[in-house]
Amino acid sequence: MSDLDPEEFRRLGHAVVDWVAGYRAGIGEHPVRAQVEPGWVRERMPALPEQPQPFDALLAELDRVVVPATTHWQAPGFFGYFPANASLHSVLGDLLSGGLGVQGMLWSTSPAATEVEQVLLDGLADALGLDPAYTWAGGGGGTIADSASSAALVALLAALHRTSGGAWRERGVDGTERVYVTAETHSSLAKAVRVAGLGAAALRIVPPSPGSLAMSAQAFAEMAAEDVAAGLRPVLVCPTIGTTGTGAVDPVREIALAAREHGTPGREIWVHVDAAWAGVAALCPEHRDVIDGVELADSFCTDAHKWLLTAFDASLLWVRDAAALPAALSITPEYLRNSATDSGEVVDYRDWQVPLGRRFRALKLWSVLHGFGLEGVRAHLRGHVALAAELESWIVAEPGFELAVPRSLSLVCLRLSAGDEATRALLERVNATGRVLLTHTVVDGRYVIRVAIGSVATEREHVEELWGLLTSR
Amino acid sequence: MSDLDPEEFRRLGHAVVDWVAGYRAGIGEHPVRAQVEPGWVRERMPALPEQPQPFDALLAELDRVVVPATTHWQAPGFFGYFPANASLHSVLGDLLSGGLGVQGMLWSTSPAATEVEQVLLDGLADALGLDPAYTWAGGGGGTIADSASSAALVALLAALHRTSGGAWRERGVDGTERVYVTAETHSSLAKAVRVAGLGAAALRIVPPSPGSLAMSAQAFAEMAAEDVAAGLRPVLVCPTIGTTGTGAVDPVREIALAAREHGTPGREIWVHVDAAWAGVAALCPEHRDVIDGVELADSFCTDAHKWLLTAFDASLLWVRDAAALPAALSITPEYLRNSATDSGEVVDYRDWQVPLGRRFRALKLWSVLHGFGLEGVRAHLRGHVALAAELESWIVAEPGFELAVPRSLSLVCLRLSAGDEATRALLERVNATGRVLLTHTVVDGRYVIRVAIGSVATEREHVEELWGLLTSR
Repeated sequence: MSDLDPEEFRRLGHAVVDWVAGYRAGIGEHPVRAQVEPGWVRERMPALPEQPQPFDALLAELDRVVVPATTHWQAPGFFGYFPANASLHSVLGDLLSGGLGVQGMLWSTSPAATEVEQVLLDGLADALGLDPAYTWAGGGGGTIADSASSAALVALLAALHRTSGGAWRERGVDGTERVYVTAETHSSLAKAVRVAGLGAAALRIVPPSPGSLAMSAQAFAEMAAEDVAAGLRPVLVCPTIGTTGTGAVDPVREIALAAREHGTPGREIWVHVDAAWAGVAALCPEHRDVIDGVELADSFCTDAHKWLLTAFDASLLWVRDAAALPAALSITPEYLRNSATDSGEVVDYRDWQVPLGRRFRALKLWSVLHGFGLEGVRAHLRGHVALAAELESWIVAEPGFELAVPRSLSLVCLRLSAGDEATRALLERVNATGRVLLTHTVVDGRYVIRVAIGSVATEREHVEELWGLLTSR
Repeated sequence: MSDLDPEEFRRLGHAVVDWVAGYRAGIGEHPVRAQVEPGWVRERMPALPEQPQPFDALLAELDRVVVPATTHWQAPGFFGYFPANASLHSVLGDLLSGGLGVQGMLWSTSPAATEVEQVLLDGLADALGLDPAYTWAGGGGGTIADSASSAALVALLAALHRTSGGAWRERGVDGTERVYVTAETHSSLAKAVRVAGLGAAALRIVPPSPGSLAMSAQAFAEMAAEDVAAGLRPVLVCPTIGTTGTGAVDPVREIALAAREHGTPGREIWVHVDAAWAGVAALCPEHRDVIDGVELADSFCTDAHKWLLTAFDASLLWVRDAAALPAALSITPEYLRNSATDSGEVVDYRDWQVPLGRRFRALKLWSVLHGFGLEGVRAHLRGHVALAAELESWIVAEPGFELAVPRSLSLVCLRLSAGDEATRALLERVNATGRVLLTHTVVDGRYVIRVAIGSVATEREHVEELWGLLTSR
């Protein structure tokens, strides 16, 4: 009734590795989208056993109950949402993290968990071409958050603290705060505004520039000026690099300049750049223009767990002021006091997030960067962009098909000229084949199919197969 | 420059499993607490490579840079903070999750990820003796959060929504909210209050009952009544089962009854029970009294990643009203709409948490419950409680040693009669041996050594060794 001894772990661990290898090798044989009804798994799950059960039986349960009710995000035909890369390199790195089993809430509770993360985030900042102010040497710093949602939330909290002159920690929000997004901004911003106690009334929806889906910097400037004149307090503006719906890119530079103009000294409007999906493209020099203007922002977030080969969760967040998040979030009870923290020489990442505890997430990111090298990562990104460009060219050339918006990196949005019902029916028909999974959005009131190319296993043949399915009658 | 093919993964995966097996087998040979200075790891980390590197080199880096700078939470001599159990069973379950690489934000994005979690949480609710109202069949339900901090935050958000009559989502907080804790409540509650925009001013510190560290239900009732009379709004009270400092248990039943009395109809005070460490003890019938009164609460949280053998992160949260968290947290943009959600027949766990994305965390919990069986889990818990009772008896019998407070399950708090400086020096001396790790707290202004017994590998011999170190001159 005790834990596996190291020898049993060795034997069973090999069996699990083999199971994973077999699952990935055969992943193309499953329907991409799970084809079960609600309750299918619940009806088949065994009761909790009183006595220890052999591990092999768990693998059998996985084959019987879990795999048939799984949507296979790692399948080469997965084109839905955004990719959720879980490369096998990252899986190995995560296994090392589980094996070490450390808790990285404080520097002192496992120094390597903090410092490996600091070094990787510095290295990635450099590789992305971020302003050196975002590195630890530059007075800023990076951290691995669980998600872009959580990154946006802590950025908002730091902004509330800063724009309150420090009163927020004691008095809370006061109802004058305003946060600026667009209708295309990810819903996590609206959620962060709600969580932070501002209410939807604090959310200002900035209109797009005419003929685009990108935020109008001028409209933002006007709204912020109006709000200031009305005695309200602009707290944060969130330009997006690569919106979820269509991959639109807000003009970060113009927005950041407008933010500077309309904040008040010491209470500057916080500019948080949400580049959850597209930001990693800046690793390729030819795509570096996507992060233009980020050097004027306060924080920048891009997800390693979308298109950067790293298994969820690993959202990368950099801030220009390393003191900003601890200033907003730190609370130190006696049982967390320690001499390293008191010395001021270390970073305690618990003060960069809402949860206290944290895994050694940096290992899976390190495993990816080590195993692929930056050139391998770039090849991964470039391959998908090239495939998306091909798909785009096929759509443009195909009668009855339309691009809904211009392609953004590896995201292609299409619709049928025949109208929304035909487009919707096409999506359903293609998904029903089980060979691919596509999801949708609505652009200007019209139903649009999104093709997000980016799964680790996706090659040209899979995009060709998708195109065949889309165009077959 | 592509990902490992399944055969390479098989070979390297076996090597990683072997590395982990070797690490765990030899874990007792390392100093428990890392003995490096700030910057030690940063100075030794390699730059990000441009070209792919062989995986074996990463394992060599781990041995060179990471292990010497790791505090070994899985070591048998780890008695600090609370345990962070990462049993090898759970490590295997987590590896399966990484291999599947699914994203469980919605039921539809991988039905098994949601339903396995639902079934396990129902089974555990039953095994813990929780009121059936906390199960899915009973109208409530359970979820796996990343941490007790996040669980407390979402409980508070649900409470803000409920006590506002639904106005909170639109208008935010209004400054009249009050949240009740004690000085011993975990700092995550103060953090949640801050994150939610209430400010520290909204936090009411209820005094303990005379001669104890547990919340006085009467004092809480009086404070709540005063606040209501003053036009303020009691939102949430958080009784703790097993405080972090000393393992004190607040009187949940009396507090919940007082909460009922002082809430207003339709705006009842939310009772969130934080049993992060101690709650799992209720799996043993002889310790079930620790959850007395939880049937009167609104939510209950206990961590599988502390003493329940499951690698971080896996905090178990149950609520009595399955609609409460989605009512507070749900926001549905077009790209997340799907027919399963629209049908109302499924649970979308994204609405139970702040982040949108989520891992298939249930697999590691399932692996633990399957591999140990409930009897194996109980044996794990009972073994540590018995060891703590022995240690307690040694302390009581030893001249110059004092119990600072009565033992709470497997947590023993001691000090030297010679005073704080002697106790502090003893802690430092014992930790400096590298054989064990202890942490401290302060009780009634006096410095106290905490001995939290609960690491998976801890046996009687390790507690004997600890006692030898504590009593050697």
